[in-house]
Amino acid sequence: MTDAANPTVHRSSYDAALARSEALEARIASDPSGLRVLTGDRPTGALHVGHYFGTLRNRVRLQEAGVETWVLVADYQVITDRDVIGDIKGSVRELLTDYLAVGIDPERATIFAHSAVPALNQLLLPFLSLVTQPELERNPTVKAELQAAGKSAMGGLLLTYPVHQAADILFCHGNVVPVGKDQLPHIEQTRVIARRFNERYAGGEQLFAEPDALLSEAPTILGLDGDKMSKSRGNAIMLRMTEAETAKLVKKAKTDADRTITFDPEGRPEVANLLTLTALSTGRTPEEIAAEIGDKGAGTLKVMCAEALNAHFAPIRERRAELEKDPAQLFEILRRGNERANAVADDTLARVREVMGMVY
Amino acid sequence: MTDAANPTVHRSSYDAALARSEALEARIASDPSGLRVLTGDRPTGALHVGHYFGTLRNRVRLQEAGVETWVLVADYQVITDRDVIGDIKGSVRELLTDYLAVGIDPERATIFAHSAVPALNQLLLPFLSLVTQPELERNPTVKAELQAAGKSAMGGLLLTYPVHQAADILFCHGNVVPVGKDQLPHIEQTRVIARRFNERYAGGEQLFAEPDALLSEAPTILGLDGDKMSKSRGNAIMLRMTEAETAKLVKKAKTDADRTITFDPEGRPEVANLLTLTALSTGRTPEEIAAEIGDKGAGTLKVMCAEALNAHFAPIRERRAELEKDPAQLFEILRRGNERANAVADDTLARVREVMGMVY
Repeated sequence: MTDAANPTVHRSSYDAALARSEALEARIASDPSGLRVLTGDRPTGALHVGHYFGTLRNRVRLQEAGVETWVLVADYQVITDRDVIGDIKGSVRELLTDYLAVGIDPERATIFAHSAVPALNQLLLPFLSLVTQPELERNPTVKAELQAAGKSAMGGLLLTYPVHQAADILFCHGNVVPVGKDQLPHIEQTRVIARRFNERYAGGEQLFAEPDALLSEAPTILGLDGDKMSKSRGNAIMLRMTEAETAKLVKKAKTDADRTITFDPEGRPEVANLLTLTALSTGRTPEEIAAEIGDKGAGTLKVMCAEALNAHFAPIRERRAELEKDPAQLFEILRRGNERANAVADDTLARVREVMGMVY
Repeated sequence: MTDAANPTVHRSSYDAALARSEALEARIASDPSGLRVLTGDRPTGALHVGHYFGTLRNRVRLQEAGVETWVLVADYQVITDRDVIGDIKGSVRELLTDYLAVGIDPERATIFAHSAVPALNQLLLPFLSLVTQPELERNPTVKAELQAAGKSAMGGLLLTYPVHQAADILFCHGNVVPVGKDQLPHIEQTRVIARRFNERYAGGEQLFAEPDALLSEAPTILGLDGDKMSKSRGNAIMLRMTEAETAKLVKKAKTDADRTITFDPEGRPEVANLLTLTALSTGRTPEEIAAEIGDKGAGTLKVMCAEALNAHFAPIRERRAELEKDPAQLFEILRRGNERANAVADDTLARVREVMGMVY
């Protein structure tokens, strides 16, 4: 990616973040001790294969590499850009089911919810004192999210959520944050807050370490109509789908009139997308698969793609079906995660109050 | 007051607030049961007679009238407009000493600190989702405070503190908030947040009652140089001063060349101020005192003023000296207040999470 493609992050700042990300990958490979990853999702429903290949798989990789893992169910972020919460408990249940099904291990990972950790949320207050309104307004990702939500007026929670996200990362001293390039402004904001807090309130003590972005090269995955994959658009293969549902959806996928299959993401995005999904599910390259299909056409590609997806997700779906039988156990896992998160947040807040002189 | 004098509140909205305030005073006089007052101060040091005649005396009046009293030590508000916290524990100790000395009774009143009540602070998050950035920016009091702080860029905590103040009032279901007219925009903001929360998240249930401003007719009290009374300007008579310090400061007060003493706040503000202080300390009217002094000049007025202040504050200063001997007891009172505030905040947050469906 070049800056021309995404002008939201300054070139030099991006290069520096990239260098730190590469150093981080080296450390993960050699000695991940002392690393703590903070990731999470807004609970807006079940996850799809775009989430899986884009982020979930990477989280499991980090967990398996021995990086301490914290996963945030960001329920307060649901109301940053919508007026109606909906069935949030149902969405949280789906999310927990997907997490465990793909291999997040609650014995090693701490899964917790925003709304259940008051001391984390309290950090928003001192942190807000460290940023100015112009800095908040300048965040390009927040602007883009306002636009995507189709709202005219910026909400107070949307405007300040990068500061809340800084609290998410810093309360547990997370130092690894896997993000795409579009999320880099948030990590930069968190780094600035950590730095300013240490300088202004902690007398230079490194109470908060500046976290690094782990810039993953996430594959571009589109919906089956060529648009962004999204449950609400009906173009998404959900992790929870059956094999038949998957095959049916893939069969209806948009392709083009050229019978000869080639991997050309720019010129033939829909065909390339099916090749990518097949490749990711089988560990082969899309070019190889395209060559194998040759002029057998999109029908053959669709059959291969559905079979590959169904084979890859079979064990995940099997675990998912098991997990769905016992929602109480899922919420018990969340409860234990909340407990761990509260213990850590209480400690961090106590230190913050101490250095700020607010212990009476 | 007319709108011309203070254009920050719309005439109709001010009239409505004034009518509600008058109804509230009637209720306080007849049957104050069910009323809960929320007041407080930023801990920036010891208080002066301007604070006493402006607000403290009124708080004690409400407490004695049987209104349940909650007093907030707003320590997080200290960092809304300054980069250096200073000796905040010392400031909190001074504030507690002044509170108890003037008659706030910790057996009946709950004195608590912002930073010690995480569940209160968490309410900032759902509440921020209920206001827009333009609404935050429009708050005239926040703008004025930015200007007073001499800062160019609005800080994130200053911008959002009316929402935090809504949390202060609503977490304990405070329904009486004694304020001057300049603080009315904050009460209006709190009322809007309560209303929107009930509509959007509580399905119309009146989880939060809209609080009323108690518009007190606070006397105008100036510093002894005719400027705003302020400890940092050295023009303030502090509650903690000795009789000799008080007399010395009053003796140096600015007056004018006219030996005949008259009460003319517009034309002779400094003389009027000394008359006001004398009047407030003795229960007489300033006109009466002016007539009594006649052409005996400012020297006589100053002696009368110092004597009146010293007589009025003698018992308060005596209690103050006693209280100062045992700071541990003061902080124990705060600790007990924090405990009570946390119990109430935890209950309120539990209800908020429940109606928002965030109980997992």
